Amino acid sequence: MAGNTFNEVFKVTTFGESHGVALGCIIDGCPAGIELSEEDVQIHLNRRRPGQSEVATERDEKDKVQILSGVFEGKTTGTPIAMVVYNKDQKSKDYSNIKDLYRPAHGDYTYEAKYGHRDYRGGGRASGRETLTRVMAGAVAMKILSEKGIEIHAYTKSIKDIEAKDCDFNYIEENSVRTCCKETANDMEQLIIDSKADNNSVGGVIECQVLNLPPGLGSPVFDKLDARLAQAMMSIGSTKGFEIGSGFDSTKMFGSEHNDNITGMTDGRLEFEKNYSGGVLAGISSGSPLVFRTAFKPTSSIKREQVGITRDGQLQEFLLEGRHDPCIVPRAVPVVQAMTALVLVEEVLRAA
Amino acid sequence: MAGNTFNEVFKVTTFGESHGVALGCIIDGCPAGIELSEEDVQIHLNRRRPGQSEVATERDEKDKVQILSGVFEGKTTGTPIAMVVYNKDQKSKDYSNIKDLYRPAHGDYTYEAKYGHRDYRGGGRASGRETLTRVMAGAVAMKILSEKGIEIHAYTKSIKDIEAKDCDFNYIEENSVRTCCKETANDMEQLIIDSKADNNSVGGVIECQVLNLPPGLGSPVFDKLDARLAQAMMSIGSTKGFEIGSGFDSTKMFGSEHNDNITGMTDGRLEFEKNYSGGVLAGISSGSPLVFRTAFKPTSSIKREQVGITRDGQLQEFLLEGRHDPCIVPRAVPVVQAMTALVLVEEVLRAA
Amino acid sequence: MAGNTFNEVFKVTTFGESHGVALGCIIDGCPAGIELSEEDVQIHLNRRRPGQSEVATERDEKDKVQILSGVFEGKTTGTPIAMVVYNKDQKSKDYSNIKDLYRPAHGDYTYEAKYGHRDYRGGGRASGRETLTRVMAGAVAMKILSEKGIEIHAYTKSIKDIEAKDCDFNYIEENSVRTCCKETANDMEQLIIDSKADNNSVGGVIECQVLNLPPGLGSPVFDKLDARLAQAMMSIGSTKGFEIGSGFDSTKMFGSEHNDNITGMTDGRLEFEKNYSGGVLAGISSGSPLVFRTAFKPTSSIKREQVGITRDGQLQEFLLEGRHDPCIVPRAVPVVQAMTALVLVEEVLRAA
Amino acid sequence: MAGNTFNEVFKVTTFGESHGVALGCIIDGCPAGIELSEEDVQIHLNRRRPGQSEVATERDEKDKVQILSGVFEGKTTGTPIAMVVYNKDQKSKDYSNIKDLYRPAHGDYTYEAKYGHRDYRGGGRASGRETLTRVMAGAVAMKILSEKGIEIHAYTKSIKDIEAKDCDFNYIEENSVRTCCKETANDMEQLIIDSKADNNSVGGVIECQVLNLPPGLGSPVFDKLDARLAQAMMSIGSTKGFEIGSGFDSTKMFGSEHNDNITGMTDGRLEFEKNYSGGVLAGISSGSPLVFRTAFKPTSSIKREQVGITRDGQLQEFLLEGRHDPCIVPRAVPVVQAMTALVLVEEVLRAA
Repeated sequence: MAGNTFNEVFKVTTFGESHGVALGCIIDGCPAGIELSEEDVQIHLNRRRPGQSEVATERDEKDKVQILSGVFEGKTTGTPIAMVVYNKDQKSKDYSNIKDLYRPAHGDYTYEAKYGHRDYRGGGRASGRETLTRVMAGAVAMKILSEKGIEIHAYTKSIKDIEAKDCDFNYIEENSVRTCCKETANDMEQLIIDSKADNNSVGGVIECQVLNLPPGLGSPVFDKLDARLAQAMMSIGSTKGFEIGSGFDSTKMFGSEHNDNITGMTDGRLEFEKNYSGGVLAGISSGSPLVFRTAFKPTSSIKREQVGITRDGQLQEFLLEGRHDPCIVPRAVPVVQAMTALVLVEEVLRAA
Repeated sequence: MAGNTFNEVFKVTTFGESHGVALGCIIDGCPAGIELSEEDVQIHLNRRRPGQSEVATERDEKDKVQILSGVFEGKTTGTPIAMVVYNKDQKSKDYSNIKDLYRPAHGDYTYEAKYGHRDYRGGGRASGRETLTRVMAGAVAMKILSEKGIEIHAYTKSIKDIEAKDCDFNYIEENSVRTCCKETANDMEQLIIDSKADNNSVGGVIECQVLNLPPGLGSPVFDKLDARLAQAMMSIGSTKGFEIGSGFDSTKMFGSEHNDNITGMTDGRLEFEKNYSGGVLAGISSGSPLVFRTAFKPTSSIKREQVGITRDGQLQEFLLEGRHDPCIVPRAVPVVQAMTALVLVEEVLRAA
Repeated sequence: MAGNTFNEVFKVTTFGESHGVALGCIIDGCPAGIELSEEDVQIHLNRRRPGQSEVATERDEKDKVQILSGVFEGKTTGTPIAMVVYNKDQKSKDYSNIKDLYRPAHGDYTYEAKYGHRDYRGGGRASGRETLTRVMAGAVAMKILSEKGIEIHAYTKSIKDIEAKDCDFNYIEENSVRTCCKETANDMEQLIIDSKADNNSVGGVIECQVLNLPPGLGSPVFDKLDARLAQAMMSIGSTKGFEIGSGFDSTKMFGSEHNDNITGMTDGRLEFEKNYSGGVLAGISSGSPLVFRTAFKPTSSIKREQVGITRDGQLQEFLLEGRHDPCIVPRAVPVVQAMTALVLVEEVLRAA
Repeated sequence: MAGNTFNEVFKVTTFGESHGVALGCIIDGCPAGIELSEEDVQIHLNRRRPGQSEVATERDEKDKVQILSGVFEGKTTGTPIAMVVYNKDQKSKDYSNIKDLYRPAHGDYTYEAKYGHRDYRGGGRASGRETLTRVMAGAVAMKILSEKGIEIHAYTKSIKDIEAKDCDFNYIEENSVRTCCKETANDMEQLIIDSKADNNSVGGVIECQVLNLPPGLGSPVFDKLDARLAQAMMSIGSTKGFEIGSGFDSTKMFGSEHNDNITGMTDGRLEFEKNYSGGVLAGISSGSPLVFRTAFKPTSSIKREQVGITRDGQLQEFLLEGRHDPCIVPRAVPVVQAMTALVLVEEVLRAA
């Protein structure tokens, strides 16, 4: 109810602030008998880690996960799995310039409106650093899903107005922007580098495809599979939109165009002419590939003058310090993948 | 967990099939002391009712709500409010043509994949008729919100490629398509009529604005206000996308363009140059108007030949019988409003 | 959260007041494919019905259940099952004597303290009539459990100081007090009749045994099987205590006496010398018979002068009108059984 | 759903095994602005700590709590509070004698039946060491309750057949058995010491009184305040029974005896002749003192030969090694207090 818990069966509760002691999560409801090591989790944290790509300095031994409970002799026990990452850089930086200022596009004001005060160090709980704990939990979910042959492929579909043209899943981890498209990858990367040089930022769209999902997952009415995916994606910071299958484009078509005839059924999976439904019919998976997209706005933190407002109501120009991602999209790819895994593992376990 | 419950504090559970005995809901968690009559609910059901507009026959005494519990001497008691609408037309129609056929864009196959069998009469639980119970519960939520001065304005933003140009909330209930725009209303209406004549259908976008929402509503991380709205909207049948504020357009802008400076604060509500955030910052309301859009695909049920598949795997052409909405958007407007009310009343009560 | 919902998987939400329009429930989460008719439910409602025993007038056609949804062609569909019983006797009785009076041992004052006002007609939501909806839901749970061979035997263990001496499950429904003991049944019955004649009331203990429960049901820590049973039993009105296995007597023994050696294992069910654990070890079923007891106080409503307090703080003698059960225990037996079924079906489905 | 989460508003999830890396909890839903330090928690952990009393060796610097998140500048932020205690003694003891043996009165068999394998080191998750995390969370709850003047007094009511005669709350922490009664404290203590010398164990009853609880807390039907307390108490290991107010004794009385007239009302709190209700009417607090009792069996772990069964079904005598509490009751007192605080803080926050 307080917003830090996700799922009911594979229940994940996360904690931690950007510059607090540690971040982590508890998974309550992971089945027993799953092989799990810290390395299984670390591999995904490394993909989300700041400073990983060729266009930025590599920092070493960051965000090292520790499993505190729930694993015995290399296997999950069915009891809660607690995981933690201690923050290394807790040096008492000077935050006096930001302490009494509400910045646009940040949670400064809204957290204070809700809670009365806020941890202003590096964004506190509202920092993107929070997604680290989603990736932790998602890594465990992916272990379960991959045992069932379910594959989750998330990738950069567009950076600003550069859109991917083809789609090769194997290429995703081979380029710094994590696009699926060899043809446009360099342009995307260059656009980000140029934006950074210009003290500017860009956004983009992440698409996610899930293959081999069995039919019959999801629920009617409020917990439709697409509805839960929408919540999961829109819960990631910096997102502004979600669409599945034909998405917003569908509103421009006639029914006769959008009409997506069934072409067959293989291994209990429906096949369609165009998969406009995106793999979900009436909230429940049809066995067709799941396809959905999430919109990420350009990073708000740019090194240009912006106008905020002080606690006592005075407009105030300010200039952000520090190093910020000129584009959050490449590092958000593993987060999208993790949240997708969390939604799907829930449905897989409910159906078990 | 089974998908028919929404919210935790103002907890709504719905039931009922299109051609079963009755549809209804229980609200468990409505505060005591709210004035409530059947008329308060009926007024909204009438807006959702089929056959209401000038372009269709008016049928009378439809969908009459009965309150079974939770109200005493005209006021809610704090105990569960059960409401029910009995189905009038339960005549044993012949469904033999559809019984063993899985249609595209319907839940026929997915319900069977999940549950093993299905109530095939009129779509059963997967019918759009289910939204009736959302409107019931939303009507009660709106009583609570309106006492706090919170206004929810939902309206047709576009029908196919005709987009509203101006926005007058007072005009919404004065035109059959429920657009906010006098200039385009006739064109929208005509497009729907023409589509119907052509045995075709169209979709569109519903926009919703919420005024006077206090700052500080919503939760961090997973239950961000925009994430919960996304789930609520995407849980309505026929939706394919959701966006808030600048939405998918944001991905095409530079950070410097998307940069939305604060211009002031009035009564604890932040004001922005462009309200690109759509009224939510870091998942919590800022006091600016909430603005979001939902994409509705063109109605799947058109009187043209389509290709489905039988239970035993044979492709089969079929032609739908019966009368169907050529465009679901105008009748979905009160559903969007109701779901918005359910999301917001939850946050208002959590914050109380 | 508002207290009218039980379970998470087999989620039951109930509604209704003693003298309102109707009482009923929704089960959200019942598996599909269970054969279910109104008769399956009615049979249990009849056991709970007032005026059923030889010592009271038989009233006819009372508490007739109607299934509103979730069943198609005689089988559950997996979607919500709504059931309702309309109140017959809603004649506007005169409640002016009770309207402003808080009676001892009733919820008059506490409901007002919580909700600001109350439905004072016949106890409103706090009436024992509410248990009718537990029996409805329990009837469906029992269908599922009996398919798995699980037997729930609840019976009167004692009435005041008369305690059952032997235990024959087949005898339970053959005597008006629903005891398992032929030897003491008449004495128990006579004691109740005498109490009634004396305008007095008595209480007693209901014991419940569950046979053929598989091992491994229940959860560690907070949702231990015995903890959930304790909540379920103590949620029934008029209960004052719960104990499992050796219960309160265990506190009087040395460890060496209480020591309950294992004597064997049959079909995966542990066997013990004395079953002091009552079938639960560390919160999880061991396969031994589940045995627990619930204490019911003597009915508060007796035709003798009692002292209450008025809304404006004046002590006031009052004399209750109407016909009341001189002992609630016999009619509470099916309620105990129903609540046990609800706890167990949840665990069975979680483990599925 | 997996049993390691308690409450919905003040939601506590715990983790950790007896001999794992660490134990801890997350509180998701603690209000912002509560002053909280590690010392506030440590003080209660020290009361629960093994080896604290005069009859046992004092071990130093044990179970040191660390707060990982949710507190900023000495106050809770409203975001999740994670707390952890690292296990000191993780030396790889030899558990080969217990690894394949199911002991009576332990969760060895039931955990394996549920999960397929188990962490057999010191009881794993089923160890009483788990209660440490309840005390952590309870300490935070008590901060909130004490700000409202609510006092929770838990104490040893009886050890085996020695029952407390008088009740002085101030005496509780002044004697090693934590009884409220000066007259019987020495006898209780001596009985425990003698049992230990005899390689035996004893149990007892813990009573809890809550003063200054406002009326109107709790919910009708399933979440009655006494029902939730019953679950909370019965979820503590080694408990066999729960009763409130007149408890099981009530079943022996006539209604006319049990009749508990109202004698007045002070500050909105009802007063009764005998408080037989135990402070709860129809599931909701009346403002009278809350009084309930929990039965703890004698410790199962005694240094005497017992009979267990091996994984392959052979009965086997075994002798427990190690030091065990001859009576768990004194150390369970702070656990009862903590669980009471968790139940009450939930109701206080729901009512806020």
